[in-house]
Amino acid sequence: MDLATILGIVSAFGLVIIAIVMGGGVSLFIDVPSLFIVVGGTLGATMINYPLKDVLRAIAVMKNAFLTSGAGADEIVRQFVDFGGKARREGILALESDVKNVKDDFLGKGLQLSVDGLEPQAIETIMDTEVSFLRERHQLGAEIFSTMGTFSPALGMIGTLIGLVQMLQSMDDPNAIGPAMAVALLTTFYGSVIANLVCMPIAGKLRTRSKEETLVKEMIIQGVISLTKGENPRILEQKMLAFMAPKERKSNF
Amino acid sequence: MDLATILGIVSAFGLVIIAIVMGGGVSLFIDVPSLFIVVGGTLGATMINYPLKDVLRAIAVMKNAFLTSGAGADEIVRQFVDFGGKARREGILALESDVKNVKDDFLGKGLQLSVDGLEPQAIETIMDTEVSFLRERHQLGAEIFSTMGTFSPALGMIGTLIGLVQMLQSMDDPNAIGPAMAVALLTTFYGSVIANLVCMPIAGKLRTRSKEETLVKEMIIQGVISLTKGENPRILEQKMLAFMAPKERKSNF
Amino acid sequence: MDLATILGIVSAFGLVIIAIVMGGGVSLFIDVPSLFIVVGGTLGATMINYPLKDVLRAIAVMKNAFLTSGAGADEIVRQFVDFGGKARREGILALESDVKNVKDDFLGKGLQLSVDGLEPQAIETIMDTEVSFLRERHQLGAEIFSTMGTFSPALGMIGTLIGLVQMLQSMDDPNAIGPAMAVALLTTFYGSVIANLVCMPIAGKLRTRSKEETLVKEMIIQGVISLTKGENPRILEQKMLAFMAPKERKSNF
Amino acid sequence: MDLATILGIVSAFGLVIIAIVMGGGVSLFIDVPSLFIVVGGTLGATMINYPLKDVLRAIAVMKNAFLTSGAGADEIVRQFVDFGGKARREGILALESDVKNVKDDFLGKGLQLSVDGLEPQAIETIMDTEVSFLRERHQLGAEIFSTMGTFSPALGMIGTLIGLVQMLQSMDDPNAIGPAMAVALLTTFYGSVIANLVCMPIAGKLRTRSKEETLVKEMIIQGVISLTKGENPRILEQKMLAFMAPKERKSNF
Amino acid sequence: MDLATILGIVSAFGLVIIAIVMGGGVSLFIDVPSLFIVVGGTLGATMINYPLKDVLRAIAVMKNAFLTSGAGADEIVRQFVDFGGKARREGILALESDVKNVKDDFLGKGLQLSVDGLEPQAIETIMDTEVSFLRERHQLGAEIFSTMGTFSPALGMIGTLIGLVQMLQSMDDPNAIGPAMAVALLTTFYGSVIANLVCMPIAGKLRTRSKEETLVKEMIIQGVISLTKGENPRILEQKMLAFMAPKERKSNF
Repeated sequence: MDLATILGIVSAFGLVIIAIVMGGGVSLFIDVPSLFIVVGGTLGATMINYPLKDVLRAIAVMKNAFLTSGAGADEIVRQFVDFGGKARREGILALESDVKNVKDDFLGKGLQLSVDGLEPQAIETIMDTEVSFLRERHQLGAEIFSTMGTFSPALGMIGTLIGLVQMLQSMDDPNAIGPAMAVALLTTFYGSVIANLVCMPIAGKLRTRSKEETLVKEMIIQGVISLTKGENPRILEQKMLAFMAPKERKSNF
Repeated sequence: MDLATILGIVSAFGLVIIAIVMGGGVSLFIDVPSLFIVVGGTLGATMINYPLKDVLRAIAVMKNAFLTSGAGADEIVRQFVDFGGKARREGILALESDVKNVKDDFLGKGLQLSVDGLEPQAIETIMDTEVSFLRERHQLGAEIFSTMGTFSPALGMIGTLIGLVQMLQSMDDPNAIGPAMAVALLTTFYGSVIANLVCMPIAGKLRTRSKEETLVKEMIIQGVISLTKGENPRILEQKMLAFMAPKERKSNF
Repeated sequence: MDLATILGIVSAFGLVIIAIVMGGGVSLFIDVPSLFIVVGGTLGATMINYPLKDVLRAIAVMKNAFLTSGAGADEIVRQFVDFGGKARREGILALESDVKNVKDDFLGKGLQLSVDGLEPQAIETIMDTEVSFLRERHQLGAEIFSTMGTFSPALGMIGTLIGLVQMLQSMDDPNAIGPAMAVALLTTFYGSVIANLVCMPIAGKLRTRSKEETLVKEMIIQGVISLTKGENPRILEQKMLAFMAPKERKSNF
Repeated sequence: MDLATILGIVSAFGLVIIAIVMGGGVSLFIDVPSLFIVVGGTLGATMINYPLKDVLRAIAVMKNAFLTSGAGADEIVRQFVDFGGKARREGILALESDVKNVKDDFLGKGLQLSVDGLEPQAIETIMDTEVSFLRERHQLGAEIFSTMGTFSPALGMIGTLIGLVQMLQSMDDPNAIGPAMAVALLTTFYGSVIANLVCMPIAGKLRTRSKEETLVKEMIIQGVISLTKGENPRILEQKMLAFMAPKERKSNF
Repeated sequence: MDLATILGIVSAFGLVIIAIVMGGGVSLFIDVPSLFIVVGGTLGATMINYPLKDVLRAIAVMKNAFLTSGAGADEIVRQFVDFGGKARREGILALESDVKNVKDDFLGKGLQLSVDGLEPQAIETIMDTEVSFLRERHQLGAEIFSTMGTFSPALGMIGTLIGLVQMLQSMDDPNAIGPAMAVALLTTFYGSVIANLVCMPIAGKLRTRSKEETLVKEMIIQGVISLTKGENPRILEQKMLAFMAPKERKSNF
C-alpha cells in the first residue's frame, strides 16, 4: 500500500469535509445534477479525446497510485554480480540455465538475447525500444488523468454558466438569487476539487510509478550490456549502482 | 466506428442539454447572433492563422475522430517474417514479385527500395523523411483544432464584453439587466462548450490516430532495414514486436 | 493573395461589427483614448522588448500574411533531375553554366559550392547554417506578433483598472456608474480583439509561411548533397519527393 | 547562510504584515480553519502526487535554500593541476595515494576509476550517469515545491468557493455578508501567499543550488577525463576554467 | 543608446500617465503603501528565488537594455579573411604576433589555442563550453526579470486581497466602499504595470542582447576552426557569412 496516497486523500478530503460541516452542513454542497454534469461531462470529453481502451486502462491503472512497486533494485544488482562472475568463469552460455529461473520477464528476455549471441549494440536497441514503448504506455495513463484535470474545471465553469444564465433570466424573487447562485457555483467547486484533489495528484503519482519502473529496467539494460561485453563484475556493479541514490547503494564486494 | 467518440459526445452533450432543459427550457440558451459571433469569429481567426487548404483539410479530417484505424500490426509482422525467410533462402531479389501484391503503399515502397539494392542507411533516410512529413501533416490537423479551442473562448469573451458594454450604457430599466447579462454570458458559454467539448477533445483524438499510424510505419521501417541487412527472421520479428504492447505480441515461431 | 487571410478578417471583424451595430450603434464602442492606451502601450512594450529594426521589419513582414508564397517545389525537383542526369553524363563541372541561369539564389549558391568541389559534408554545414538563421529571422517576425498578442490584453486590463479606479473614487452619481464601467471595459475589449483577431492569427500565418519556405530550402539542400555525391537521378528524386505530401508528388520518370 | 533568502523573507513578509497591521489589525487575517484547509489540503494533494519519502525529503531539503553551498571550484582546479603534473611525471598510478586524501567523494571516486585503469569513455559514462541521477534527485525537491505552489492557490479557491456557497445560502442578514465574504477570501489570500512568497521562490532557490553543485561535478568529470588521457596540465586547466565565469577564473600558471 | 527601449518607455508610460491625468489627476493613483507591498514583495520573492549576487547583477545588467551592442560582425569576418590568408602563406604560427593586437578577448583566446597547436576538435570543445556558460549567465539576467514579471502581478493580487478583506470587514459607511475598493485595486494596477511595461519587456530585450553577442561568438568559433584546419579563406568567409542576414553580408573577395 502506498501510505502517502491514503494519507493525502484522508487529509485533503477530511479538511474539505470538516470545513463544509462546520459551515452549516453537507447538504448545501450536494447537488446531484451538478455532480452529473461535471463528472459525466469530464468523462465524455475524455472519451472523445482518447480511445476507449486507453480510458478504461487508465481507470484500471488508477489502483497503481495506491500500491507501492516492489522493484528490488538491490536484488537485481546482486543477481547481475553473480551472473557476471559465472559468465567470466564458464562463459556466457552457462547462463542459459539461469534464464528460466529469473522472475523478472524483462531481465529474462535480456539474458536470453545475450545467451543467443546477439551483439551488445543489437541487444541495447531491442531493449531500449521496449522500454521506450513501455514508458509511453505508462505515461498515457498519467496523461489521461492530467487531461481530465483540465476538462473538469472547464465543465465546472460550463455548469456555473448554465446556472447563471438561468438565474439571470428570472430574477423576480430577490431571495432566490443567493441560493440559485450558490447552486451555480457548486459545479465550479466540484470541477476544482476533482481536478486538484483527484486527477492532477493521481497523474503525478502514476508518473512517479512509471519513472521507478523504468529506472529499474534501464539498470537491467546496463547490466545485460555489461554482461554481454564480458566486463569485470566490479565495473558492472559500479555502472548499475550509479542508477541508485548514494544512500541506497550496497556493494557486493 | 470509434465508439468512444460517439459515447463521449452523447454523454457530454446529453448531460449539458439535460441540465439546460431541467432548468427552464432550451430557448434561454439559443441566441443566433451570439452563436454566429463565436463560431464565425473562431473560424475567421483560424483562417487568418492557417492556409485555407489546411483549414478545409482539418475539417475534412475531423471524420477520422469517428473512425478506428485498421492498422493490422500483427499481419504486418507476419508478412515480414515470411519475406525474411524468403529473402534468406532465395535472396532479396526474390521479393520483387511480392512488391506488387503488398496492399500497404508505404510497405510496398520500402520493399521496392530494398529490392533496388539501396543501402539500409539510404532506405532509412528516405523512409524516415517520409514518416516525419506525414506526421507533420497529421499533427497539423490536430493543431488547427487546438488553435480553434483557444480562439473560441476568446471570442466568447469578446462577445460577452460587447454585451456588457451595451448593457452598461443603458441601465434605465433594472428588470432588463438580468436578461441582458444572461444573453451576454451566452457567448462565453458557447465558446467554452465549443472549446472543451468539441475542439480540444477532437484535437486529442486526431493526435492519437496520428500516433497509431506513425507507429505502424516505424515498425515497417524497422522491418525493411532488418530485411535489407539480411537479419535472421527471429531477430527481425523481435525488433518489430518491441513496438507493440506485450499483450498484443504474437510470435510466429 | 492569400484568400484565407482576407476571408478570415472579413468574417471575424464583420461578425463583431454586426453584433455591435445590432446592439445599439458603433459609437458606444469607439473611445479614442482607450484605443490609444491599448495600441500605443502594446507598441511601446514591444519596442522595449525588441530592437527597433526587428519591430519595423515585423510590421513590414505582416504583408506576407496576405500573400501566398510562390514556392514551386515541382519545378525544383524537375530541375534537379535534369542536373543529376547532366552531372552523371558530363561530370559535375558541366553544371557551371547552369549556376547563372538558376533563379533561386539559394539553389544557385548550393550548385556553386558543389561545382567548386566542396565535400558534401561541408556543403551541408554551410547550407544548413544559412537555413537555420533564415528560419530564426522568419520566426522572429512571428514571435514579435505573438508577444504583441500577450501585451495587448495586459494593456487592456491596465486600461480597465485605470477606468475602474477613477470610477470608484467618484461614485456620487449612480447613473454615471454604468457608462463609466462600459468605457473602462472598452480597453479590455480592444486588447482582446487585437490579440485574438489580429496579432495571434497573423503570428500563426507568418509561422506557416516560414515553414513552407524552409521546407523548399531543405529539399534543395537534399538535392545538392545528392547531386554532389553523384547519386542516381531516380534516387535523388525519391529523396526530394519525400519532403512533399504524397498527393503533390509527380515523378519525372 | 544564504543572506538573500533571509532578506527576501523578511522584506516580503514584513511588507505584507505592515500592510495588514496598518489596515486595521492582524486579527482580521487570522482564521484557523481557513489556514488548515489551505495548508492541509496542499500537503494532502502533494502526498497523493508524490511518494511519502520524497515529500519528507523535499521538506528536509528546504533548509538548503537557507544555506550557501561551499563548492570551492578554485580549489578543485588547483588540485587537478597538481594531479596532472604528478601523473605526467610519475604516471597515473602515482595518484593512488592521493585518492584517500581527497575530501570530495565524487572526485575521489573519479580518481579511483582512473587509477584502476578504465578507459576515459567508460569513466565518463559512469560519472555522467551518477551526475544525471543526482540532478534528477535534486530537481525532484524543487519540483515538489513547484507543485505545492500550484496546489495552494487551487485550494485557496476551493476554500473561497466553500465560503461563498455557505454565504449565498443564508443571506438573511445583509450586515453579515461583508464579513462572511472577507473570511471566504482569506483562503485565496493564504493560497496566494503560500504559493508566491514560499513555495515558488523556494523551488527556484533549490534549482539554483542544484545547478551550482552539478556544475562543480561536471568540472570534476572534465578534469578526470583530461587526467586519464594524460593531457597537458595547462590544457586540463583551460578546459576546467571554461566552466567558470571569466571573473572567477584564476590560472595556476 | 538603444532608441527602441527609450521610445517604448516614453510611449507606453506616457500614454498610461495621460490616461490617468485626463481621468481626474495623478493623486488617485499614488498610494505609497501599495507601491511598497508590490515592489518590495516582488524583490523579496525574487531574492528568495535567486542568489543575492545574481539579483544584483541582473539589476546592474538592466542597463544593457538601454545600450546597443557594438558587435561589428563585418569587421570580424574581414579580420579572419586576413588571418586565413596569412596562415596559408606563412603557417599558423605566423599569427602569434596578431594574438596580442586582437581587441576581442574571446577571439584572442581562440587564436592562441590555434597557435598553440591544439586540434580543431579540442578548440571547439573549449570555446563551445565557454560560450554555453556565457549564454547561461546572460540568460539568467533575463530569467530573473521574467520571474519578477510573474511575481509582481501575484503580489498585486495579494495586496488587493488584503484591501478587500479589510474593506469587507467594515462596510458601515457605503460611501467609503468605492474609494476603499479603488485603493485595493491599485496594487493590482501596479503589479500589472511593473510586469507588462517593465519586467517582461526588459527580459525580452536582454534575451535579444544575449543572442546578438552569442551569435558573434559562434561566428568566431567557426572562424577559428576553419583557420586551424587551414581552409581556403573563401570557404572560411562563406562559413562565417552564413551566420549573418543576407542583406548584411559583405564579401571581401
